[in-house]
Amino acid sequence: MFGELVTVEGALDLLDGALQKAWGIDRPWEEIPLLQGLGRVAARDLISPIDLPGFARSTVDGYAVRARDTYGASESLPAPLRLVGEVAMGRMAAKPLGPGEAQRIATGGMLPPNADGVVMLEYALELGDGFVEIMRGISPGENRLQADEDLSLGDVIIPRGWTLAPADLGALAGVGFLKVPVIKEPLVGILSTGDEIVPPEALPSPGQVRDINAYALAGEVLAKGGQIHLGGIVPDDYHRLQEQVARLAGECRMVLISGGSSVGARDHTRRVMDELGQVLVHGIAIRPGKPTIIGLAGDCLLLGLPGHPVSAQVVFQILGGRALDLWFQRRPRGPGAVLAARFGRNLAAAQGREDYVRVRIVHREGEFWAEPILAQSGSINSLVQAHGLVRIPLEKEGLRQGEPVKVHLFAGEVARWEI
Amino acid sequence: MFGELVTVEGALDLLDGALQKAWGIDRPWEEIPLLQGLGRVAARDLISPIDLPGFARSTVDGYAVRARDTYGASESLPAPLRLVGEVAMGRMAAKPLGPGEAQRIATGGMLPPNADGVVMLEYALELGDGFVEIMRGISPGENRLQADEDLSLGDVIIPRGWTLAPADLGALAGVGFLKVPVIKEPLVGILSTGDEIVPPEALPSPGQVRDINAYALAGEVLAKGGQIHLGGIVPDDYHRLQEQVARLAGECRMVLISGGSSVGARDHTRRVMDELGQVLVHGIAIRPGKPTIIGLAGDCLLLGLPGHPVSAQVVFQILGGRALDLWFQRRPRGPGAVLAARFGRNLAAAQGREDYVRVRIVHREGEFWAEPILAQSGSINSLVQAHGLVRIPLEKEGLRQGEPVKVHLFAGEVARWEI
Repeated sequence: MFGELVTVEGALDLLDGALQKAWGIDRPWEEIPLLQGLGRVAARDLISPIDLPGFARSTVDGYAVRARDTYGASESLPAPLRLVGEVAMGRMAAKPLGPGEAQRIATGGMLPPNADGVVMLEYALELGDGFVEIMRGISPGENRLQADEDLSLGDVIIPRGWTLAPADLGALAGVGFLKVPVIKEPLVGILSTGDEIVPPEALPSPGQVRDINAYALAGEVLAKGGQIHLGGIVPDDYHRLQEQVARLAGECRMVLISGGSSVGARDHTRRVMDELGQVLVHGIAIRPGKPTIIGLAGDCLLLGLPGHPVSAQVVFQILGGRALDLWFQRRPRGPGAVLAARFGRNLAAAQGREDYVRVRIVHREGEFWAEPILAQSGSINSLVQAHGLVRIPLEKEGLRQGEPVKVHLFAGEVARWEI
Repeated sequence: MFGELVTVEGALDLLDGALQKAWGIDRPWEEIPLLQGLGRVAARDLISPIDLPGFARSTVDGYAVRARDTYGASESLPAPLRLVGEVAMGRMAAKPLGPGEAQRIATGGMLPPNADGVVMLEYALELGDGFVEIMRGISPGENRLQADEDLSLGDVIIPRGWTLAPADLGALAGVGFLKVPVIKEPLVGILSTGDEIVPPEALPSPGQVRDINAYALAGEVLAKGGQIHLGGIVPDDYHRLQEQVARLAGECRMVLISGGSSVGARDHTRRVMDELGQVLVHGIAIRPGKPTIIGLAGDCLLLGLPGHPVSAQVVFQILGGRALDLWFQRRPRGPGAVLAARFGRNLAAAQGREDYVRVRIVHREGEFWAEPILAQSGSINSLVQAHGLVRIPLEKEGLRQGEPVKVHLFAGEVARWEI
């Protein structure tokens, strides 16, 4: 039924190689309004066309001074400076500062020529006779943001491949980007197969179940930045499957075919892939998810996923997620949603496979514990209840209670516990 | 300039109390198509109207049997059972199983009456004479999913207040939800103030800067599920500010007023809030973000945020994020995006304030280290470079190098490092 099982690492390598060839280097991209850019992926390095802020600014309310005029000043021995006006907000500070002079300035105001620092309001006293007493000396540069301190002309603000976050929109607005070039979202076709599957709107007869996978997978694809093209349900019929996969493969960059867990149905999926293109992998050393098939038809990735919802989701997150990262040429910005926890009980791993265990996180004795959810892989509710996955590598025989593990949190997990 | 500073905890308590009164218990909600539900918040408990799968199913390819007919079977002493047909996928398994009988069944097939388990294909051998030899005994229930094993009629699938994740769409489709009731997204008005602020499309003259905060805050609001209503830039003029805040407060559930970092501008924001409603808090023991003002005008929350981009973002994440959680009556599903790391260097905390330190995560010596970014709070680029925030509580004097900390990751941090 299978040839030799491929390791997860081996499958990912084959996937990477095949997609690099099929998709090449360039990606279609589009320019969209800045505010629509949240969560989209930068199509090229976004480079600052200016220095930011562009002029030396005060970071406090106070008095622009030449630092050397304040050296040694203290409450008992204040330095009197001549007050020669005020910097207007949003205006060029026209009047240069002479020796022994000070100008009033508000936070964000432009430092006048020759000023190299700002004395905070609370350390100065206006005498009403045209002088202000400085009661604390400052160093050059104190309470001042330099002209290019935030960004310099030519700096890469956002490298190609970053997923745009809220702060990025601010930074891009700050240097005058009104639009942002982003990689186009790839269309991902989704098919469910099996004589027992009916659409959610149908009333299932005994022996029938509603289509769970199409909707769970659609959610996964959307969360990873893809666009979905629902291809419906195909009964266990070779010709209809072939016809439908061929149609979707012509329109999409990736087609997910879930179900067909039975031997016969799997054979159909395999035959269809053989006919439309080539099969790269059939059978992966992973639990859940062993019967996975990876194929390629032209520049369209075909993923034959198991019918069990849990298996389909785990395999999609690993293989489909990787493919979408390759499409977007995503560069990780940081550690991602990984939580260190202790494993909640002793658990033996599958022999010769990588195990992916669904877990719930509980907070106990000041630590996070990852409690495995041991429902069958057909159970959608176990996925709804899970917070993430723990991977047990091939070479490990299992996990002991209390052993430190890293939990890969699901994308939906953005709400926070206060800890 | 300020009264006594309120602690962060105190400010959150005042916010909670005021919004509970202003917004009451009920929220406007709408029914939307299931596939549009990703990331939206359930407006009520979503309850299963059926048992799922609804009938006993096989979880493997093999032979439906009565477990007791297989007891003691082994390769050397197989149990021969009479093969009396095959369960068709998607059909009711009509023919009950008699003693000593087996029926072929595929994964997902409906168990015939009287069958209580399934023998896997690889442990059975069809003899071709109408018999199948079972080479491994099974227990009752083996390789079988019970009729209500995934979900029972009346089970809460998704509690009110959960943000919908991919698996949830699958579970809801599985029990026949085509639409999902979600809480309406609140409209959040965003205003920037200051004579020095120009829109991103303008070419700033010396002394002027483009509007960073409106776009960074818009991103934050969108990431937390709100809808944005950009109110533009208001110069440092009391009457125009008053007019614009009043207009937005009439249309929105929350108005963010950023900027006005100078004493005069802050006074305007404060006066406007006093006139339109009431000020709850003016000045919070937090760094960055001390000059924050919280007010209420009718059922609209007014947040006066500092002008520095970093300060504005930190304060929004704490106060604005909390307000949006209260609007959606969100229930956390798990630990959220929290990373345990070691702090990268010695750092003194502000006296009498909670400190929020931007950090980058690096992986070193097999551990995550949180390296503080020590740029000024006016720096937008430091936010772009940061992965999250580390909180130093009021009572701590600082952090030591190597000290364990929890990093609250920013929402955009969904890419993953392989570790």
